[in-house]
Amino acid sequence: MPLPRQVCIAVIGAGGVGKCFLSQLSGLASKLSQSPGAPYYLSLVWLSTSKKAIYNADYKPLNNWESELQNSTKPTLPLPELAEYLVKAPGKVVLVDNTSNQDVANSYPAFLKKGISVVTPNKKAFSGDYTLWTDIFSAASNGTGNGGYIFHESSVGAGLPVISTLKDLVETGDQVQKIEGVFSGTMSFLFNSFQPTSGGGGKFSAEVTNAKDKGYTEPDARDDLNGLDVARKLTILARLAGLKVESPTSFPVQSLIPKELESCSSGDEFLQRLPEFDGQMDELKSEAEKEGKVIRFVGSVDVPNNKVKVGLEKFDKSHPIAALKGSDNIIAFYTKRYGDNPLIIQGAGAGGDVTAMGVTADLVKVLRLLN
Amino acid sequence: MPLPRQVCIAVIGAGGVGKCFLSQLSGLASKLSQSPGAPYYLSLVWLSTSKKAIYNADYKPLNNWESELQNSTKPTLPLPELAEYLVKAPGKVVLVDNTSNQDVANSYPAFLKKGISVVTPNKKAFSGDYTLWTDIFSAASNGTGNGGYIFHESSVGAGLPVISTLKDLVETGDQVQKIEGVFSGTMSFLFNSFQPTSGGGGKFSAEVTNAKDKGYTEPDARDDLNGLDVARKLTILARLAGLKVESPTSFPVQSLIPKELESCSSGDEFLQRLPEFDGQMDELKSEAEKEGKVIRFVGSVDVPNNKVKVGLEKFDKSHPIAALKGSDNIIAFYTKRYGDNPLIIQGAGAGGDVTAMGVTADLVKVLRLLN
Repeated sequence: MPLPRQVCIAVIGAGGVGKCFLSQLSGLASKLSQSPGAPYYLSLVWLSTSKKAIYNADYKPLNNWESELQNSTKPTLPLPELAEYLVKAPGKVVLVDNTSNQDVANSYPAFLKKGISVVTPNKKAFSGDYTLWTDIFSAASNGTGNGGYIFHESSVGAGLPVISTLKDLVETGDQVQKIEGVFSGTMSFLFNSFQPTSGGGGKFSAEVTNAKDKGYTEPDARDDLNGLDVARKLTILARLAGLKVESPTSFPVQSLIPKELESCSSGDEFLQRLPEFDGQMDELKSEAEKEGKVIRFVGSVDVPNNKVKVGLEKFDKSHPIAALKGSDNIIAFYTKRYGDNPLIIQGAGAGGDVTAMGVTADLVKVLRLLN
Repeated sequence: MPLPRQVCIAVIGAGGVGKCFLSQLSGLASKLSQSPGAPYYLSLVWLSTSKKAIYNADYKPLNNWESELQNSTKPTLPLPELAEYLVKAPGKVVLVDNTSNQDVANSYPAFLKKGISVVTPNKKAFSGDYTLWTDIFSAASNGTGNGGYIFHESSVGAGLPVISTLKDLVETGDQVQKIEGVFSGTMSFLFNSFQPTSGGGGKFSAEVTNAKDKGYTEPDARDDLNGLDVARKLTILARLAGLKVESPTSFPVQSLIPKELESCSSGDEFLQRLPEFDGQMDELKSEAEKEGKVIRFVGSVDVPNNKVKVGLEKFDKSHPIAALKGSDNIIAFYTKRYGDNPLIIQGAGAGGDVTAMGVTADLVKVLRLLN
């Protein structure tokens, strides 16, 4: 039996998702080290934040990253230097990008071309300029190139099997007609509270503040309410379904930031003034109620008609999208094979642990392919 | 760029699923042949039914399998001879078992040990004796062996991503607490019609006859009503979750065949006498109704308590299991990471095209790994 080979893991980002990933990585590494006959073993050889990095000049594994990172004063390397550094590692390398940084995303093609695989929940790489998308997949071995592998399951719906399922549908020759769903945990929580199917619900501005207090929004809630996060996810799905979507701003995206508040200088000022617009939201709510419906913030891709959109829509109370709970996501794939009853995937679509899970599962996929 | 390598496909079974798979295979093969730089091309080198087979002595591809099979008078080979034949093929071999045959299932370890990969929707291999399960996964490269690869997504929920999701949860270190769902299209259709959440519904025996007439049951409806099909699926999921389940009869399975009708000599006699027991079913229905619930035929795996069971249970009308439509399956994974709101997968869990889709997607996975 051949000796297990070393696979070097380089991680950028040690925030919420990053920390959860590092904990899952340590579990995976120790499971592998205890499996006789496992074809590889994992070494964490690099960990960086936006400011500093930890790594050993001889690629010796980082076994106590938490304390080492805390005590480190080494500045991080520029990305091209990091690529140069990793390419000389004593084994295949997987770069795990747990940031949402555009610069890191822009560097994927360079890493991939050097044979370094990339796994990431970072939406920026797949929802930005179409050129970056093309550059990534023409470099990757699981695209049309012969560089490293790239996987990004957690860029939509966190650990939910959304991207792998869509890829399976497309690759096996199904015709995807429509993809529709609630793609934001924040928006899910907001509208499930603002207009529960059972009636009631608070003022919209109060629900936004409540969601923020519970940690369901970005530090500045406007970053959720502008719809861009959902638009990025829809861009990714539309492209995987075969549509050439230029960018997340190249199709209609409804922002829930009232025009009059676009000039607010801070998130706090915005929240303070948001109650002025509760009347408008109440109007939408009662309009829906009159039809026996509820409003939800959804995204959809209409493949045959090449249309992507993001915004508020009304749903019958018995519709699975209306019946969603908490901050769950739901994604429905309407395809030729599945007919009128779509393939539905539902569950938590945000949170450190479930996002990291998608990243770790992607890492396992890469490991098998590197085998 | 290296020349694309030939991968030889051998298919057993040309029934409903088999025909759909062959059509998807032909789509996949032609897509590959049109992709410049595709690392492999596919040749169908063997196709057999229970009686006859088509193959060319020099492994020349079967390009018109439909007419060739119709006209063939060649008897099929015994499985050990087939293995001997395939191992000499001019390329890696993937055996696609589209039967539900126990003998074919029993031969997987032998094929795998010879380096032949297996993809299949056949439940028998994974839900029979625990020894067969062990033999398969100790031979396969994606088990602990170094033979061929084995994938069986369609053995539970057809093309729905049930098995891959459960594997991802386990491999990334999540703790699966409970798996619960409706795992049979027939049972789904029967109970969604017998007791719709909106009230009404027919007599149970009439719904069984209706389901049979619509092609939703096996030719003999008792093969659905005995619960064994669901028990087999639960056995597979429980084993993937880490439980050592001996066989699909080693845990409680409720049969919907009344004791008094177990001796019926034919499916027709059974259907004729089933109305005698409508009173009992109506009683269950009105009991549930009084609690504001509906009855459904479900299976569940309770991982921490090592308990698997299959049978009728009552669900609140707002529960996702109660709200299922048509003949859809639903599978809910309750895990430590996903907390109270489970990861849910829902959609058609039977039918030639969607079952074949799971098999084709598994084939694509094998192709990548053989790369």
